[in-house]
Amino acid sequence: MSRKLIVAIGGLLPAHRDAIRAAAEPEGFDVTFHKNPAEAMPDAADAEIIFGNAPELARVAPKLRWLCTPSAGYDHYAGTGVFASPEAMLSNSSGAYGVTIAEHVVMMTLELMRCQQDYSGVVERREWVRNLPVRSICGSCVAVLGTGDLGRTIARRLRGFEPARIVGVNRSGHNPGNLFDEARPIADLDDVLPGCDLLIMSLPGAPETRHILDGRRLALLPDGAIIVNVGRGTSIDEEALLIELRSGRIRAGLDVFEVEPLPQDSPLWACPNLLITPHAAGNLTLPYTVDRIVALFLEDFGRYCKGEPLKRRVDPNK
Amino acid sequence: MSRKLIVAIGGLLPAHRDAIRAAAEPEGFDVTFHKNPAEAMPDAADAEIIFGNAPELARVAPKLRWLCTPSAGYDHYAGTGVFASPEAMLSNSSGAYGVTIAEHVVMMTLELMRCQQDYSGVVERREWVRNLPVRSICGSCVAVLGTGDLGRTIARRLRGFEPARIVGVNRSGHNPGNLFDEARPIADLDDVLPGCDLLIMSLPGAPETRHILDGRRLALLPDGAIIVNVGRGTSIDEEALLIELRSGRIRAGLDVFEVEPLPQDSPLWACPNLLITPHAAGNLTLPYTVDRIVALFLEDFGRYCKGEPLKRRVDPNK
Repeated sequence: MSRKLIVAIGGLLPAHRDAIRAAAEPEGFDVTFHKNPAEAMPDAADAEIIFGNAPELARVAPKLRWLCTPSAGYDHYAGTGVFASPEAMLSNSSGAYGVTIAEHVVMMTLELMRCQQDYSGVVERREWVRNLPVRSICGSCVAVLGTGDLGRTIARRLRGFEPARIVGVNRSGHNPGNLFDEARPIADLDDVLPGCDLLIMSLPGAPETRHILDGRRLALLPDGAIIVNVGRGTSIDEEALLIELRSGRIRAGLDVFEVEPLPQDSPLWACPNLLITPHAAGNLTLPYTVDRIVALFLEDFGRYCKGEPLKRRVDPNK
Repeated sequence: MSRKLIVAIGGLLPAHRDAIRAAAEPEGFDVTFHKNPAEAMPDAADAEIIFGNAPELARVAPKLRWLCTPSAGYDHYAGTGVFASPEAMLSNSSGAYGVTIAEHVVMMTLELMRCQQDYSGVVERREWVRNLPVRSICGSCVAVLGTGDLGRTIARRLRGFEPARIVGVNRSGHNPGNLFDEARPIADLDDVLPGCDLLIMSLPGAPETRHILDGRRLALLPDGAIIVNVGRGTSIDEEALLIELRSGRIRAGLDVFEVEPLPQDSPLWACPNLLITPHAAGNLTLPYTVDRIVALFLEDFGRYCKGEPLKRRVDPNK
């Protein structure tokens, strides 16, 4: 019986499928492609490798040795009981999403700074109102909370806009690639917030990032501050944020939410001073991103076949 | 009788007025501030200097020696009869708008590339649709038509997004500050257009830029090309553009129009694949921009008082 590789990702192009087959078949793998994990369920029982964001497949794959998620986040794999196979490794696709998510951050930031939601209304009413009060990234003090691939790519994009400074905040306070004017450990967050014109959140989901921006910390932000969150919705206490948004003291762009899909009756849908996108910043409709996740997978696939450690292996419980 | 300086600009802060008074009064000037040119009309007859975008004041100011417009564009001063005073000099405020207009360009580009108009509708209907096809500046071929202050500042911002290349197009084909991967003279425009994923237009209004993008040249752009125009509306043949936008072959962001305000019955208001803002990219509601125009004026005011040539003097008929 041949070895089994299940690929359960929508949006792959024929060229991606060909590249995966060309790498896997010489190693004795039978590769099956599925649009989503549900469709792959019948195949999971004897899978050795799964390439897909599919804890539900891991639960029913006792022979699994490696699951590679095409996402950067892997918080859905934490806890016991996700992996039916005790020896299964998990790897992620960190490094594939910086380009698209950084563009989303810059877009949301500029839309908020340039009153683009209000200008949309002006244009819809065919008015010629030109004097809405705009702001600029130039001269602004920016903090980037989370300096992984996302935070670093965001900082590189923002640099060209001549901000006054970009502070990176992470666990240790290290300054990756000296991309930040200053790096601070998360323990200093309370000192960083009062100086933030623009707070960008690109944190992974984890117990220690849950509600890291709560009501007390929101109150530390200066009047008029702008928050953009493209990490995980759980990082912000949405109840507390709602109060600030409704008062108009703070404005925000959110691509991620505490509960997703955002429930129909969430007060966020109609909240003023808030720009929403439906967790679309890092989707797989951008060919560049799909190219990257396939390239990253194939890199680790080569290591796997040679018995080398996976480059992007992660521990779901850390 | 004291010398007269008329300032006819909305949006000046007290600090700006103080700075102008502090420079002008020691030189014997009586400074009057007005929110707009209309309000300044009764004062124009004996004005020596006007700081404002006000051809209507120049027409009734026979003693005028210098008009400084806070705009970068000065096409409204072309032709005979604008200046009642034959010896009046004209200067502009080129260098004040790059920051804000470049941010507008990046915002519009990303909104178009990331289907933000469609996502607005998705969010308005409280749907959780995430798979609209997005594109990226990363890897895109960009042409910037017009490499003055605007075009250069735009190129600096775009560089951080890792485009495949940025081509600058201008009269002579020179490459200012080596900001562009390649510079081409306007005579080569037909060769540049077929390779443009993104065409940014930051041209001044002038007879030779009128309809520089006509139907024939629009047809040279590849399918899916994006155009962003923040220069002058007259640079594009809007009738020809409408056809391309309606077919969906091309998408565009326009901040400027052939006729402004855009007439109520213009088909552009409801045209698909088009993002409109009401000539708002470079308005004076951004404090940074007002700081700059005042600083630039004061620099040339110092030169004027010393009898030196104005740094930003322009010839309205060139």
